[in-house]
Amino acid sequence: MGDLSAAPLLVRALRGEPVERTPVWFMRQAGRSLPEYKEVRKQGSLLEICHRPELAAEVTLQPVRRHGVDAAILFSDIVTPLDAIGFGVEVKAGVGPVVADPIRSHADLARLRDFEPDEDMPALRKTIELIVAELGPQGIPLIGFAGAPFTLASYLVEGGPSKQQSLTKAMMLADPELFEALLRRLSAIAVASLRTQVDAGAQVVQVFDSWIGTLSRDQYRRFVLPVMTDLFTELKDLGVPRTIFGVGTGHLLDLLAETGADCVGIDWRIDLRDARALVPDRCTLQGNLDPSVMLAPQSVIETEVRRVLDSAPDQGHVFNLGHGVLPETPPEVPGEIVRLVREHTAKKSLA
Amino acid sequence: MGDLSAAPLLVRALRGEPVERTPVWFMRQAGRSLPEYKEVRKQGSLLEICHRPELAAEVTLQPVRRHGVDAAILFSDIVTPLDAIGFGVEVKAGVGPVVADPIRSHADLARLRDFEPDEDMPALRKTIELIVAELGPQGIPLIGFAGAPFTLASYLVEGGPSKQQSLTKAMMLADPELFEALLRRLSAIAVASLRTQVDAGAQVVQVFDSWIGTLSRDQYRRFVLPVMTDLFTELKDLGVPRTIFGVGTGHLLDLLAETGADCVGIDWRIDLRDARALVPDRCTLQGNLDPSVMLAPQSVIETEVRRVLDSAPDQGHVFNLGHGVLPETPPEVPGEIVRLVREHTAKKSLA
Repeated sequence: MGDLSAAPLLVRALRGEPVERTPVWFMRQAGRSLPEYKEVRKQGSLLEICHRPELAAEVTLQPVRRHGVDAAILFSDIVTPLDAIGFGVEVKAGVGPVVADPIRSHADLARLRDFEPDEDMPALRKTIELIVAELGPQGIPLIGFAGAPFTLASYLVEGGPSKQQSLTKAMMLADPELFEALLRRLSAIAVASLRTQVDAGAQVVQVFDSWIGTLSRDQYRRFVLPVMTDLFTELKDLGVPRTIFGVGTGHLLDLLAETGADCVGIDWRIDLRDARALVPDRCTLQGNLDPSVMLAPQSVIETEVRRVLDSAPDQGHVFNLGHGVLPETPPEVPGEIVRLVREHTAKKSLA
Repeated sequence: MGDLSAAPLLVRALRGEPVERTPVWFMRQAGRSLPEYKEVRKQGSLLEICHRPELAAEVTLQPVRRHGVDAAILFSDIVTPLDAIGFGVEVKAGVGPVVADPIRSHADLARLRDFEPDEDMPALRKTIELIVAELGPQGIPLIGFAGAPFTLASYLVEGGPSKQQSLTKAMMLADPELFEALLRRLSAIAVASLRTQVDAGAQVVQVFDSWIGTLSRDQYRRFVLPVMTDLFTELKDLGVPRTIFGVGTGHLLDLLAETGADCVGIDWRIDLRDARALVPDRCTLQGNLDPSVMLAPQSVIETEVRRVLDSAPDQGHVFNLGHGVLPETPPEVPGEIVRLVREHTAKKSLA
C-alpha cells in the first residue's frame, strides 16, 4: 500500500486532497448481508457481539477481507452506548432498537447518565485496538461510529422505530427545553464514545443521523443545529475527518454542513452535482449509489456505478451507498462494485 | 354558502383564482383519528366499509360535520380497486395494505385485470351520490381519491408496506418493461376509478403517490414520469382540478408538476416559499402543516399554522397537512385549525 507514513486514501479524500483514485466503502458493509457474519451471530445477539472484542473485531474486518474496501467501520449500533450504561434497550431482529421504558419527561432524563467508555464498555477500546493491529500494517483506516442525538432521541421517545417520529416531534414542539436537554445528553454520549474510538486508533468518525430528514429546515435550524454544531466542535481537536449522514436530507444539505462536519453523506435521491451546489466547498461528499442497485443485474450495476462517478466532484468524493447495504444483497456484489470504482476512477486519472 | 352556481371555494383556489379566504381540508381527515369513525368500524373492516355506500358516505361526511372543513374526500384506500377486482389484498390495522401473492413476473400481471367501477364496485358511484346529495346544497365539494401507480406497485411487489421499496426498485432497474407494464395497468385502474368518481359528482381529484419520494430525480424521470403524464392527460377532459401528492418529494417537485397535475401537494419538510420557486406558476400548492403539530399545545399550533400561512403564496394555496392526520390526534384539533385558518386568512384579505 505504498508509504504507510502518509494518511490513508480515505482520509486524504475526506480532506478534499487530490487522490490517485476514489476510495470506496459501504455503509452497513459489516453485518446482516454476509454469511460469515451470520456464522458469528450464532454466538450472541448484536449487542452481545459489540461487548466481545474478538467477535466485534472479526465482524468489522470481514467486509475488508471479502470486498477489499478502503476502510473498515466499527461494527456497532447507534444504541450500543445506551446499552452499555444500562438504559435498557434491545436490538430486535427485523425491527430495530426497542426501548422498554421510553423517555417522556425531565425525570426520565436522569436515566440517561454519562457514558464513560473505558468503564462502561471496555470492549470498545479493546475492539478498536484489535482492528487497528490488523489494518494498520495494510494502511487501511478504521471509521469510528456514533448515533446522532436526534435519531437516538427518536428511538428513546417513541420506544422503538417509527415512521413519522410523531411523539419525538411533539416533544420537540411542546417542550423544547426538555428536548434540547435530551439531545445534549445524547450528544455528550456520542462525543465520549467517538473520542475514545479515535484515541484507540480510529482515523475517521461518522455520525449517523438517519431519521433527521423528517424535520423541516426551520425545525432543524431551531431544534437540532445548535446541538450538532457543539457536537462537531467538541470533536474538532481530534484532527480526524468528521462525516455526518442521514437519509432524505436533500432539503437540509447546507444545514448539515453548517454543523461544522468535514464531509456530508448524500443519499441516493440527490444527484451529487446538485449536492455539490448546496454544500459549501469546504465539505467533501460521500455517496450515493441506491442500495437497491445491488439487487439488479451486473449491467445495471455497472451503469449506475458510472452514473454516480460521473456526477461526483473531481476532488473530495468518497464512493459509498446512499443508505445501508440491504440484507438481501448478494455477498459478492459489494466487492464487484469496489472493482468497478477502482477501474473507472483509475482510468479517469490516466486520462 | 352564497352563490351555489359558482364553483366551490376549494375549486377556485385550486384553479389559482383569487379567493375570499384560504380553503382548508386535511388528508386522512376521515377515519382513524375520529371516535365516530371507530363506532362505524365496529360494523366492518376498512375495505368492507368501502363496499357499503351508507357507511362509506357516513365516514366521508363525519369530518365535514365535526371540523367544518371546506371539502370532503372520499373515504377509501389506495388498494380499494384492487380488492374490488379480486386481486387479494387486505388492509391490516397498524400495518397497511398486505398482498398475499405479490407481483414478481409478467405472468403475474394477468391477475391485475381492468377495473370496471360500475360492475366491480357499484358502491363507488352510490357512495359518491349519497355524499354529493348531502354536500351539494352546502356548496362543499367532494375530492375523488386514487392511489398512484408507483406507490400501488410498491405494495404489490413487496407484498406489503416497506421502508425502502427495495424489491420494487430492483424490478424497476432489472426489468423496466415489466415495471412499466405494471405501472400502466395500475394507471388504467386509477383513471377508471377517478373518471367514475367525477361522473358521479366529485369536483376535484387527488392522486396519492405517497412513497414516490424514495426515487431519485433520474429514476422518476426515466421510470415514472411518462406514465404519470399519460395518467393526468387521461383525466384532463374531466375539467376538474387534479392534485398530485407524495411525501419526501422536495427533490422532485418540478417533476411532479411536469406530470400535468394542476396542484402539487407539499409535505411539511419544504417551506412553501421554496416549493413556489420550484413549481411553475401554472400549478397551485397544497399543504403543509407538520401533522405532529396537531399533538402540540394550542399556542404552538397557532404559531405553526401562521408560519404555514405566512409562507403560502397569495393565490393558489389550499391549507392542508404535509401528510395524513396522525391516529393519536385529539379530535377537536382539526376543527380548531380550520377556525385559525379562516380567522387568519380573512384578516389578511381585510388588510
